[in-house]
Amino acid sequence: MDWVTLDRIGQYTGTTVELRGWVANRRSSGRIRFLQLRDGPGTIQCVVLADKVTPEEFEFADKVPYESSVIIRGEVREDRRAPNGYEITVTRLELVSEAEPYPISKKDHGVGFLMDHRHLWLRSSRQRALLKLRAVITRTARAYFDELGFIGIEAPILTPTACEGTTSLFKVGYFDDSAYLTQSGQLYGEAAAMALGRIYVYGPTFRAEKSKTRRHLTEFWMIEPEMAFYDLADTIDLAEGLVCRIVSAALEECRPELSLLERDIKPLERVVAPFPRITYAEAVEVLKNKGLEFAWGDDFGGDEETVISEAFDRPVFITHYPAQVKAFYMKRDPADPRLALAVDMLASEGYGEVIGGGQREDSLEALEKSIEAHELDRGPLEWYLDLRRYGSVPHAGFGLGIERTVAWIAGIHHVRETIPFPRLMDRLYP
Amino acid sequence: MDWVTLDRIGQYTGTTVELRGWVANRRSSGRIRFLQLRDGPGTIQCVVLADKVTPEEFEFADKVPYESSVIIRGEVREDRRAPNGYEITVTRLELVSEAEPYPISKKDHGVGFLMDHRHLWLRSSRQRALLKLRAVITRTARAYFDELGFIGIEAPILTPTACEGTTSLFKVGYFDDSAYLTQSGQLYGEAAAMALGRIYVYGPTFRAEKSKTRRHLTEFWMIEPEMAFYDLADTIDLAEGLVCRIVSAALEECRPELSLLERDIKPLERVVAPFPRITYAEAVEVLKNKGLEFAWGDDFGGDEETVISEAFDRPVFITHYPAQVKAFYMKRDPADPRLALAVDMLASEGYGEVIGGGQREDSLEALEKSIEAHELDRGPLEWYLDLRRYGSVPHAGFGLGIERTVAWIAGIHHVRETIPFPRLMDRLYP
Repeated sequence: MDWVTLDRIGQYTGTTVELRGWVANRRSSGRIRFLQLRDGPGTIQCVVLADKVTPEEFEFADKVPYESSVIIRGEVREDRRAPNGYEITVTRLELVSEAEPYPISKKDHGVGFLMDHRHLWLRSSRQRALLKLRAVITRTARAYFDELGFIGIEAPILTPTACEGTTSLFKVGYFDDSAYLTQSGQLYGEAAAMALGRIYVYGPTFRAEKSKTRRHLTEFWMIEPEMAFYDLADTIDLAEGLVCRIVSAALEECRPELSLLERDIKPLERVVAPFPRITYAEAVEVLKNKGLEFAWGDDFGGDEETVISEAFDRPVFITHYPAQVKAFYMKRDPADPRLALAVDMLASEGYGEVIGGGQREDSLEALEKSIEAHELDRGPLEWYLDLRRYGSVPHAGFGLGIERTVAWIAGIHHVRETIPFPRLMDRLYP
Repeated sequence: MDWVTLDRIGQYTGTTVELRGWVANRRSSGRIRFLQLRDGPGTIQCVVLADKVTPEEFEFADKVPYESSVIIRGEVREDRRAPNGYEITVTRLELVSEAEPYPISKKDHGVGFLMDHRHLWLRSSRQRALLKLRAVITRTARAYFDELGFIGIEAPILTPTACEGTTSLFKVGYFDDSAYLTQSGQLYGEAAAMALGRIYVYGPTFRAEKSKTRRHLTEFWMIEPEMAFYDLADTIDLAEGLVCRIVSAALEECRPELSLLERDIKPLERVVAPFPRITYAEAVEVLKNKGLEFAWGDDFGGDEETVISEAFDRPVFITHYPAQVKAFYMKRDPADPRLALAVDMLASEGYGEVIGGGQREDSLEALEKSIEAHELDRGPLEWYLDLRRYGSVPHAGFGLGIERTVAWIAGIHHVRETIPFPRLMDRLYP
């Protein structure tokens, strides 16, 4: 008899199978007992009847501690009332390992308690739905670029360079030297784009920011395409295609998960091209029309992003930011050198920035000036300047933050639930 | 007129196209000049004839510095003599950016020089072939698990725990605390397997080892599947399938790259299931039969791995190592408690270990004893012990090292060329 996982249960109607998993729930009703079995790919109701099992097994079905591991044999029946359409009539119930009293119960636990037990919390239906959704999103994002002929590369994690400013670096002892954890794979992605044309980096990035907002983790993942001979408009087209592809994959492959998360999918169904494209100056007008005080030249914070994104029914691209609020590598707008050819994409429904990118400075002279103006140490960036010395080309790229994207598509409040083991300023365990 | 990339050039025979890229080579022969254009996806010979371009363009074709970026227009012709089957007759030649004298020439450079210029070295045909091969290998590995229904997850990089011993940890300042860079995603993968059944982790791992061998990097990538209810034999089957799938993808998708790398593909064509499976004790016999002195209980080093792997015509699995040479989480062999239910896979042709794994200790008591025996700090591992307190199950997994796998399939000597920006004990730049 085969061990069957619950993603394949539909192929076994009317036959006897072996299931292996954990007791997620149980209840008794006179001569009938119900175990909810969770095996990873799915859950199923297992019906235990006194005349089908031994008295010991029947007794055990009433007492087995939650999250104990078991092997169950029984017959698969179609049952329209069951959540996944099937039930099992148990003929054998075998304990693998009896769980100690499980710390996570149905009652409301505080977030701190759940985060301390993140390794167990992952077993809940909500967290499993989020992990599945995340896996679909990251797989789809890579497939989008693979199918366009981009080459997936890995940027180094240990770097000698600060990419997004020097104040939020994690320092690592590196033998007799020091290194920093990467803030973005972009600079290395640019070097690879000069070799391979169009590439994408998928990897973890780090910011030692002392922010405790619902949008910040100290360790987060990005997918960062970088393309030789692309300009700002090409890059926005590429980003728009990516976001549409991700949202439609979530709607196609994760309906049960979105339903379990009680996600209203109507706003997601509106995420189709073209997305609105406005300038920073126009975004400032949006804020003023809503009565917010905002000075030209400032960067948008979370509150401003929420207000702007709520003004549109789908994601919105904002371009042409003041250069002063953007990183040193951003190309200046030839039509107005106060501006950078930068783009951010704000997700809909107030979810704020999930994409940041733009055209990169391809002039050696302009880049040298910018490094000086930003008071960056030029030594560790000499290799990056080489990209402008040897066959510089117009090029552009962006980074999409995985956790913010998952939070948006899942419709959940805080990014901490979108990654298996979140790292925050005060959270390094488990 | 369309900008065309060279992966699509075959669709444009007989038409005029625009190409964008870099001058990889040039030569002149009287009234005819040849530019080799590299655009990332490919290279093509561009023929410049005096009567098809302006005198300035013709002159320029003779002098354009190597690695300058250019836009070329011309007509696509089929030409069987050309390496990729096509040539361009140039009608317009436009400079984008003139390169300074390019530091990497045809002459032999030392490895140190090339590594200092890694950001430029990537543009060589050999390095591009290796990056393409790596991308195919990592994509194929993930696809293998995705298609089997495994969920891809990300393990944390910043951890409070040592996984593979405490002597090779990189320490990171974490606000007022310290963290360590992960040595393996496995422990977190185990927690996720208890929630999702079968998962895989793809991510960077770190070892602060003071080894300067051809098989060691301080930063390297692994794919690490972890499966609830799998035993050692199931895990070997899974690993065998993965390696066969990766090798056949390389043979199917990377023929030109393997040819450029002068890889003898016959040994790769022999990589088909079943692979030999021997015990540690049998491997020791192999060494003794070859005249090597080796004491039972020692771990195999690079030399021993080479000798063992050369005794077989395809990869070999070695199981049942002495527990003392394996990590604390390895399950003891019930038939002989001196042994661990561990498995390593040595690649063929002397390439040594590319996979390490086995069955995990699922008894709380045995794991507690092992932590004590290994003199590990138990505090940061309490969450890991919880996995044995709440529904422990037999489970197993392995890690496949990406760089060693790429080096093996490419047939190259040193892993430093298998990752875009290698990190070694004395190498952190660029």
